[in-house]
Amino acid sequence: MANDLEKTPVAVLGLGAMGQALATAFLKAGHPTTIWNRSPGKDDELIARGAVRATGAAEAVRAAELVVICVVDHHAATAVLDSVAEDLPGRVLVNLTSDTPERARKTGAWAQEHGIDYLDGSIMVPVDLVGRPPALIFYSGPRTAYDRHETALKALGGKPAHLGEDQGLAAVYDLALLDYFYGSISGLLHAYALAGADGVRAADLAPYLDTITAFMPSLAAEAAQHVDAGSHPGEAANLGMMASGVGHILEWAEHRGLDVSTLRPIKEVYDRTVALGHAAESWTSTIEVVRGNADSARGDRAGQTL
Amino acid sequence: MANDLEKTPVAVLGLGAMGQALATAFLKAGHPTTIWNRSPGKDDELIARGAVRATGAAEAVRAAELVVICVVDHHAATAVLDSVAEDLPGRVLVNLTSDTPERARKTGAWAQEHGIDYLDGSIMVPVDLVGRPPALIFYSGPRTAYDRHETALKALGGKPAHLGEDQGLAAVYDLALLDYFYGSISGLLHAYALAGADGVRAADLAPYLDTITAFMPSLAAEAAQHVDAGSHPGEAANLGMMASGVGHILEWAEHRGLDVSTLRPIKEVYDRTVALGHAAESWTSTIEVVRGNADSARGDRAGQTL
Ligand SMILES: NC(=O)c1ccc[n+]([C@@H]2O[C@H](COP(=O)([O-])OP(=O)(O)OC[C@H]3O[C@@H](n4cnc5c(N)ncnc54)[C@H](OP(=O)(O)O)[C@@H]3O)[C@@H](O)[C@H]2O)c1
Ligand SMILES: NC(=O)c1ccc[n+]([C@@H]2O[C@H](COP(=O)([O-])OP(=O)(O)OC[C@H]3O[C@@H](n4cnc5c(N)ncnc54)[C@H](OP(=O)(O)O)[C@@H]3O)[C@@H](O)[C@H]2O)c1
Repeated sequence: MANDLEKTPVAVLGLGAMGQALATAFLKAGHPTTIWNRSPGKDDELIARGAVRATGAAEAVRAAELVVICVVDHHAATAVLDSVAEDLPGRVLVNLTSDTPERARKTGAWAQEHGIDYLDGSIMVPVDLVGRPPALIFYSGPRTAYDRHETALKALGGKPAHLGEDQGLAAVYDLALLDYFYGSISGLLHAYALAGADGVRAADLAPYLDTITAFMPSLAAEAAQHVDAGSHPGEAANLGMMASGVGHILEWAEHRGLDVSTLRPIKEVYDRTVALGHAAESWTSTIEVVRGNADSARGDRAGQTL
Repeated sequence: MANDLEKTPVAVLGLGAMGQALATAFLKAGHPTTIWNRSPGKDDELIARGAVRATGAAEAVRAAELVVICVVDHHAATAVLDSVAEDLPGRVLVNLTSDTPERARKTGAWAQEHGIDYLDGSIMVPVDLVGRPPALIFYSGPRTAYDRHETALKALGGKPAHLGEDQGLAAVYDLALLDYFYGSISGLLHAYALAGADGVRAADLAPYLDTITAFMPSLAAEAAQHVDAGSHPGEAANLGMMASGVGHILEWAEHRGLDVSTLRPIKEVYDRTVALGHAAESWTSTIEVVRGNADSARGDRAGQTL
């Protein structure tokens, strides 16, 4: 058993699905854990596991050396943090609320003003993986603050990654991973709807979908090479063939009466890239269309306000 | 070494990226392999490996017991098949060209008229996996024809799946898997573009993306349960939180000047589902929006023309 006396006392602010998972992981690792949520009724299970209920956010903060907040967005986080600004100095604040890089940097500037050591972070797994070896969590902000609490933070996930001093970095990686995630699950659900329209149950389709998932890591690595090199060899699979393939899905989905608002623009991106003369190249040449005018925007990076 | 004399003689019509991979797999397994392509210049490597060059599609067909065609779409396949209709009876024709269920059934009807044993199929992996154990290939059509050549077809991929007698079934599963595939790679490329706009190289992002990929099979299985049960419990991750998350990606992608034509509709599907009152449910409740009017269309299934 872990010796609680040696473990960093922590506070968890926000007991939504993710906050509860974080508090549970701290408790399992033996950390004295004080918890608080805006509205009552979400902490019974955690109290039964040994957590201490604080009557207010400030009380929770004062009980801890490491303060973790995880609420729906930075607007919500700011509402809580403003109320405990006086209590945070001397402690490390870790904000695991997902939002834009800009707002993470804004909270970073606010923390600096108030003399608070601040790490911004993002959790890249569902709640059932929190506290377990595959749980990837990004952190960014002062390395010294991260190093001080790395051991405690490892209770939350076996794959912590400190990305750098710039507090916006965790959000940069978070949003990119989420971009891939939401594209994937949007396609996943559309696939269930499409198969369902022909009488195929989702449970019968799911195992086959795993074949696609299984080759995504090698495909992602190859696509990354193309993107970074700016060269899109299409010998193995060319954009023209793939545009035709997306066309068949779209045609059939429309025939079956499905909502195709997410599918049609995928076809259109392929068609626009073909129209630019890339039919014989790889599908990764669509990056030229996807980038839009990002190239010109790329100059202004950190430090701006949204 | 395989004894060529015992191996079914095969023909491969169409030597695009996939046709070449199929012919290579047959040759590796020791099948006498006759090849043909509409335009010349694509068969030198195959000839060097021992394939026989036919001067026309009919000559290739006549040399084989099992005829595999793989061209860009059914329109192209029909052009080739019409020219060899007299030579196909007595042989088994396997069409591994991807297209809609409707067109697969139409080709099935054409084959029946001409007394041709016809299987429609779809290859669910990239060319580099063809002929290898993880290669999933769907087949549908007469079971007897499939059984006759199952051994030879296993040369093309270690995971053949005969889905049923209805020739449209392989395409039903094909399009559903492709729907998931194209959603995933659309998100993948958008993720590279988004990270790139903040100066992160695709190669640096790719390993982290694998964390998302790693939990897709369990997420897909859970989502399938929700969809089939028509019940969408949202305790672990609710749609309201996720709509907020997609909103952050969209906001940042727009801020960076990216094309958001594929991303905005994902957010809109979430918002429309929230507006229907599902904010506290799982994201899988978006199926109600995605299905569109598919429920009413579901009655008319097989046998229709497009
Ligand atoms: N769930 C997941 O699978 C998952 C995975 C990775 C990352 N995340 C991230 O984790 C964060 C939390 O997600 P979740 O799933 O825990 O969301 P959730 O279950 O919807 O919980 C939302 C939390 O935010 C609080 N909140 C909202 N507005 C507030 C305000 N104005 N002031 C104070 N508290 C406020 C809520 O308090 P009340 O109870 O008082 O409403 C609740 O504690 C999000 O940024 C999300 O992107 C979640
Ligand atoms: N490549 C992949 O990764 C992959 C993966 C799974 C499934 N598939 C499926 O495999 C099929 C073939 O794809 P691919 O990658 O091999 O495409 P590809 O490299 O673009 O080759 C297209 C083939 O179709 C032929 N063709 C086009 N129009 C024709 C016509 N009117 N008459 C006769 N032949 C015609 C071409 O002949 P010419 O050389 O004379 O133009 C060529 O042999 C597609 O249905 C695709 O969806 C491909």
